[in-house]
Amino acid sequence: MSIIGKPVEEVSTPALLLDLDKFQWNIDKMFKFARKAKVNVRPHSKTFKAAAICNKLIEAGACGVMTQKLSEAEVLQSSGILYGDKNILISQEISDPEKLERLVGMTVAMGQGKVITSLDNLQEAEMISRIAERWKVKQDVLIEVTHGRCGVNPGEDAVKMAQRIVKLKGLNFRGIYGYENPVPRETALERNKKTVDTANAIRAAGIEVEIVSAGSTATYEVTGTYPGITEIEPGSFVFGAGKEGSGYGWETINDVYFKSSLTVLTQVISDNFENRVVTDAGAKVMSGGHEGVEPVVLVQADGEYLDFERVGLSEEHGTIYFKEGDPNRKKLRWGQKIEFTPNHCCTTVNQHDEIMVVKDGYVCSIWPITARGKYQ
Amino acid sequence: MSIIGKPVEEVSTPALLLDLDKFQWNIDKMFKFARKAKVNVRPHSKTFKAAAICNKLIEAGACGVMTQKLSEAEVLQSSGILYGDKNILISQEISDPEKLERLVGMTVAMGQGKVITSLDNLQEAEMISRIAERWKVKQDVLIEVTHGRCGVNPGEDAVKMAQRIVKLKGLNFRGIYGYENPVPRETALERNKKTVDTANAIRAAGIEVEIVSAGSTATYEVTGTYPGITEIEPGSFVFGAGKEGSGYGWETINDVYFKSSLTVLTQVISDNFENRVVTDAGAKVMSGGHEGVEPVVLVQADGEYLDFERVGLSEEHGTIYFKEGDPNRKKLRWGQKIEFTPNHCCTTVNQHDEIMVVKDGYVCSIWPITARGKYQ
Repeated sequence: MSIIGKPVEEVSTPALLLDLDKFQWNIDKMFKFARKAKVNVRPHSKTFKAAAICNKLIEAGACGVMTQKLSEAEVLQSSGILYGDKNILISQEISDPEKLERLVGMTVAMGQGKVITSLDNLQEAEMISRIAERWKVKQDVLIEVTHGRCGVNPGEDAVKMAQRIVKLKGLNFRGIYGYENPVPRETALERNKKTVDTANAIRAAGIEVEIVSAGSTATYEVTGTYPGITEIEPGSFVFGAGKEGSGYGWETINDVYFKSSLTVLTQVISDNFENRVVTDAGAKVMSGGHEGVEPVVLVQADGEYLDFERVGLSEEHGTIYFKEGDPNRKKLRWGQKIEFTPNHCCTTVNQHDEIMVVKDGYVCSIWPITARGKYQ
Repeated sequence: MSIIGKPVEEVSTPALLLDLDKFQWNIDKMFKFARKAKVNVRPHSKTFKAAAICNKLIEAGACGVMTQKLSEAEVLQSSGILYGDKNILISQEISDPEKLERLVGMTVAMGQGKVITSLDNLQEAEMISRIAERWKVKQDVLIEVTHGRCGVNPGEDAVKMAQRIVKLKGLNFRGIYGYENPVPRETALERNKKTVDTANAIRAAGIEVEIVSAGSTATYEVTGTYPGITEIEPGSFVFGAGKEGSGYGWETINDVYFKSSLTVLTQVISDNFENRVVTDAGAKVMSGGHEGVEPVVLVQADGEYLDFERVGLSEEHGTIYFKEGDPNRKKLRWGQKIEFTPNHCCTTVNQHDEIMVVKDGYVCSIWPITARGKYQ
């Protein structure tokens, strides 16, 4: 029996919920900003992993999507997001020859320019080029410029690699990618400068640089208005998080604000004691989230955020502890359905097979988390 | 093209691996102990969630399995583990009327006594009883005795609840369950005493107590030899964890030892810098694991454990950092496949759709993680 059309209270717990209006508000805000700033938005689908959400974002004006993994791109390629000039950018390097075959095979199947990959290694570039030449296509690539994880050094190292890449017959060099992390404004500006300076240095060497991709939800305004950045890659803005602010881990870096649209519906399964109640949502459902973030979840009961002492997430239980005599304890009763907000939306969504889409308190759709568990 | 029969080096990364010989060694050790101690073993399938592993354990002599969730029981019921007198015990309380219908429906379908549930609440007991009476079956139940999470107080409270339960016509009271956590020997003994004393107090009230269930991998010897305990519920022993010892979080409580059989195969995808290499396995693949456990993963390269400064698990990257000049850095190269050992096997397995079974370095089978994502 379908849950569609039923009130959210009838959904079996634990279940992942999306408030459609808040979600749409977040999308509208991001794309209104982008139109004004004249910057492309390439949402990072590692956050939401759902083809339905990719489609919503493409419809809102996204230039394409970013995926972290090849297998995410593989399952999203057939979702209708690749029409017109839209494309997928894979932001993680690939060092496996078998996967590089899969990458180029996807380009053969979907059309040249539909799938772009980032790289930081000449071996990878040469391997891709050989495969593409065999297929008689060109594989679009970007160079990742490092800000501390993968990548090559900004500046001279990146220029040298671009010079090598443009000589490889199977590759089509599109530009550079520099993930800058969710950082404060000043750090983002420093990193943006390095990224854009690198793009200009490559141009000075006579090589066209079309795409200069950077930015996260936490830095979307800073990076999205930085001259020379052509596209930003926010992901978590679709979900917001927390009572106030955006992103995850309860941080509101750079005064970014999006509405909190993602919760996990859970239920009080045990209430025999004065200082605690136990719910059916533990770490497997909420994900471990961000270490050291307090509180580990936010709790809503009867639509209101609830104060408590702490929540302990064991594997399959969420235990809400109260100080002795706290009147908030009485707001919770056996069998009651309540909502947890996770402190890391990206890892939490990945725990689930589907998300219940809720409008005005009623379930209107169930969206599969299409790329859940796609790690390769 | 199937990977079966191929060397593990050909498996695409990241992938969950199980060393079959070490896994079997762990099973043999546990059941050898149990036969000598004359205690039943009811492995906790929340750890491994795979029907194939349930079957291996039933074959080794398990009296049944434990699941944390109703939906785990639902997907495992059809896996062939319920022959003869074998059964499934659901260890988490249920407060949802719709799920209680599902619980009793399973008993109707599979046969009375095949599915036992634990409870700590009279409303739940009465709801189950009404449903069972309607179906004209009796639903087997246990009372959970609390050691700090769900449950009722040991002693008088448990006796009172047993007295109420045996009056309910739709229920068949089988005994008590007291999860004692992975605790040191002394604490386990205190908790065992409370559990067994409670069983005896219920018996003194004229009620038969057949099952007295407790114990984890960390306490299997302590609890498994405690007079009056009829069954133990270890889970993580099948995987062991770490270079030495067992369980998870690198703890070797009570000198428990099982072999480390579970790893995640990952690959070096970026190696441009002297102080770090980056792999394709991050927190989504390894799970957040246990907070504050250092190192967050163990690293094997070319079959040997590797020393490093720290591993940073971001969502989809595992970055291995080295101190300047550390010769271990040179043991890692771009494209190399290495193995991570997770510090929490239960949450890690739940991230994956399947596990690659490896014997002598070759893949011999792929086992689906049948109950992955079954949280309800």
